[in-house]
Amino acid sequence: MTTKSIAELLSEDIILQDVTVNGWVRTFRANRFIALNDGSTINNIQCVVDFENFDEALLKRITTGAALQIKGELVESQGKGQSVEIQVKELEVLGDSDPETYPIQPKKHTFEFLRENAHLRTRTNTFSAVMRLRSALSFAIHKYFTENGFYNMHTPIITGSDAEGAGEMFRVSTLDAKKPPLTEDGEVNYKEDFFGKETNLTVSGQLEAETYAMSLGKVYTFGPTFRAENSNTSRHLAEFWMIEPEVAFMDLAGNMDLAEDFLKSVLGYVLENNKEDLEFLDKRLQDAEKSLPQAERSPMNLIEKIKFVVDNNFKRVSYTEAIDILRNSKPNKKKKFKYIIEEWGADLQSEHERYLVEKHFKCPVILFDYPANIKAFYMRLNEDGKTVRAMDILFPGIGEMVGGSQREERLDVLKEKMKALDIPEEELWWYLDLRKYGTAVHSGFGLGFERLVMFATGMNNIRDVIPYPRTPQNAEF
Amino acid sequence: MTTKSIAELLSEDIILQDVTVNGWVRTFRANRFIALNDGSTINNIQCVVDFENFDEALLKRITTGAALQIKGELVESQGKGQSVEIQVKELEVLGDSDPETYPIQPKKHTFEFLRENAHLRTRTNTFSAVMRLRSALSFAIHKYFTENGFYNMHTPIITGSDAEGAGEMFRVSTLDAKKPPLTEDGEVNYKEDFFGKETNLTVSGQLEAETYAMSLGKVYTFGPTFRAENSNTSRHLAEFWMIEPEVAFMDLAGNMDLAEDFLKSVLGYVLENNKEDLEFLDKRLQDAEKSLPQAERSPMNLIEKIKFVVDNNFKRVSYTEAIDILRNSKPNKKKKFKYIIEEWGADLQSEHERYLVEKHFKCPVILFDYPANIKAFYMRLNEDGKTVRAMDILFPGIGEMVGGSQREERLDVLKEKMKALDIPEEELWWYLDLRKYGTAVHSGFGLGFERLVMFATGMNNIRDVIPYPRTPQNAEF
Repeated sequence: MTTKSIAELLSEDIILQDVTVNGWVRTFRANRFIALNDGSTINNIQCVVDFENFDEALLKRITTGAALQIKGELVESQGKGQSVEIQVKELEVLGDSDPETYPIQPKKHTFEFLRENAHLRTRTNTFSAVMRLRSALSFAIHKYFTENGFYNMHTPIITGSDAEGAGEMFRVSTLDAKKPPLTEDGEVNYKEDFFGKETNLTVSGQLEAETYAMSLGKVYTFGPTFRAENSNTSRHLAEFWMIEPEVAFMDLAGNMDLAEDFLKSVLGYVLENNKEDLEFLDKRLQDAEKSLPQAERSPMNLIEKIKFVVDNNFKRVSYTEAIDILRNSKPNKKKKFKYIIEEWGADLQSEHERYLVEKHFKCPVILFDYPANIKAFYMRLNEDGKTVRAMDILFPGIGEMVGGSQREERLDVLKEKMKALDIPEEELWWYLDLRKYGTAVHSGFGLGFERLVMFATGMNNIRDVIPYPRTPQNAEF
Repeated sequence: MTTKSIAELLSEDIILQDVTVNGWVRTFRANRFIALNDGSTINNIQCVVDFENFDEALLKRITTGAALQIKGELVESQGKGQSVEIQVKELEVLGDSDPETYPIQPKKHTFEFLRENAHLRTRTNTFSAVMRLRSALSFAIHKYFTENGFYNMHTPIITGSDAEGAGEMFRVSTLDAKKPPLTEDGEVNYKEDFFGKETNLTVSGQLEAETYAMSLGKVYTFGPTFRAENSNTSRHLAEFWMIEPEVAFMDLAGNMDLAEDFLKSVLGYVLENNKEDLEFLDKRLQDAEKSLPQAERSPMNLIEKIKFVVDNNFKRVSYTEAIDILRNSKPNKKKKFKYIIEEWGADLQSEHERYLVEKHFKCPVILFDYPANIKAFYMRLNEDGKTVRAMDILFPGIGEMVGGSQREERLDVLKEKMKALDIPEEELWWYLDLRKYGTAVHSGFGLGFERLVMFATGMNNIRDVIPYPRTPQNAEF
């Protein structure tokens, strides 16, 4: 008699075998039917107790959340809803769960309540499905890059360079917090800090990834990144995971091809491998939207939406074209946008991106060739002298999913740009070295992993797609 | 004519085709033979230039480190050392590399010099091989767990709980570094900090991983962890990557089985998939050891050593047996150990671990059932009341590769232990909840990823197996 996971048992074709199974009680119905779950699948296995043969005191301990070990015979199920079930011969309560105090009752809980009980929320169908999907997406990403000749690299989390300017940073220090040592000038003396200089948590691994692309050819990072921004929204986290591929000898067109192929591949992977979790989340979303007026419901259901992305080409549109479309759009003319688009050069807001993706093109959109002055210093300047080879991929319901660019590979142009932005060369001597020695066209992009998980699960608060979200005023667990 | 990687070209069986290849010059010999590398493999492709057909000024720019695009015909090689080569038809220098200043010359550099040029060191054979192996091991780990029904989970990097006591921590803050806000009592007022409390960088994701094991069944983390310890050794980093599986319903014996199977599987993966890089590193190590006296050389070469681990059972020995062996050992009796083992209860030092693994058993060793008072609070107390279900896996040349345990699943015993160690229950209310609601036997372990990379590459300084090492006084790049 072997111990098997419920996922294994439910896919068995050998019945009438003796099995042992461990799991947690989801429900116990009619003093007879235990729905047992062990996390290996969204499905429970039904364990049938012949209550006359068991002690009443024992049966009373079969409550929601209790951990059980069950031995019995796997048989064809008589009831509907499952093909096999276990006829219980022996039952042991490994761990009780007091129904008076157990927070996760078999009823609907608000997501806010479950966030406060994040250590228990994967005991619900919704969150276990979300986190299994998160895991599957993570593996699909590693698989895609490995199969396509990329090398994974771990870029540093603690960084001494703050030159990238992607956002506010968290300081990392071991100095006395109350009375830090000071220099003669009265400033904090970071020479006495652990690393002998001021250090912060990384906002991006891109610059370091470029160093490896310029030797290993094709690399990618998949690690945590940080923003110390006081944004308490459903789309921002202070700590989130980012995927950043970087490829030598690849231009912006290649970068767009890569990003599109990558997104289709990883979403295709979960369509193929996570059918049951997706079907559950699909139904959940439809149920949740039933209370909304028709106009606010999603035009496609979850699985349709993922399939749509996998099966259709992304629309590629230059920033300049996009500005024309937006300037002539109804919401712009009727002043429905909060930020009216008046001229070329305007930075696009979320409302504009959503209009393009959800109303105008009705498909994922790749915007490219943005004005230089609204983009980062390292992006390749076009021959027009005013746009850079940047691209953003916009997804329905999500907004920016990917941001990338061809990198400025010309030493003189890069230096000039850094000078104009007051980025000291000494800070990035190693980054400049890449342009001094064997420079070449290269490109890459960044993808916020949680945005992808939101898209693939239909969850609309980013706090619900990462195990323990870090947000302003919240670092619980 | 398509652009292919050098790895692809070298495995082609269609010759006489027109190809385009991009890469960096490793050497240029006799004004005729370019050894070109693009990072896709340790092997260079030989590009043969008919110098009479090319401009002399162009040929002068073919220097070590320069980036080239070459078009030509893939032909059978006339020379030895390669099966195919490219007969160059067109050659473009994408990026020059001034031989007067380029740091990575085609000669032997010290590892210390290369650490100072960590942004360029993967342009050498040794470091490109190490980092390709690091990447392969990373993928092998994700693959192993995915194929064995584990879910990947991302535990938080910034943590508000400092209860685990695994080591000194880095503080994460956005408060004014010089003049932090103070409370009425004159202490730093962390309520005004970003997260509303004091926060640090995580030392381990285990406690959070336990919460997911107790719902999803089998989970693992693979993320960065931190120690603010002033250890300037070849085996310590302030920032390193750790793998931590955690499994519900698994006891210590299952934990040992899992760890052994896991290590054999991921090392087996690189033996199968990274033959060329391993052969290069194997030879490198043999060359490096030639200057050492016979007694200090490795008893096995690199590939033999990896195969030995994959093919042999790890020796399982209780702490109590190990103490007996050590007490009766020659170095103990002759007082050659720095720390003499006198009685049961002594904490084992690196010298003792190495003796057991390298001299006594001559194979990987799993030590288990350690004295409770030298191990962490969360380890399952044995029935003897003095030992805990802990295990360490010791590897030759590395020492501790894995540390794990069965976790204390009994609420009362855990609370008592925390009380004795002054760990406040409020800090870990969520951890205690796991023992209140559906508790069950569960176990897990932690593996320092860089230790594994050291073992698989034969590198003996941990700074040489991570792209940008973080150590006391060093956070460059």
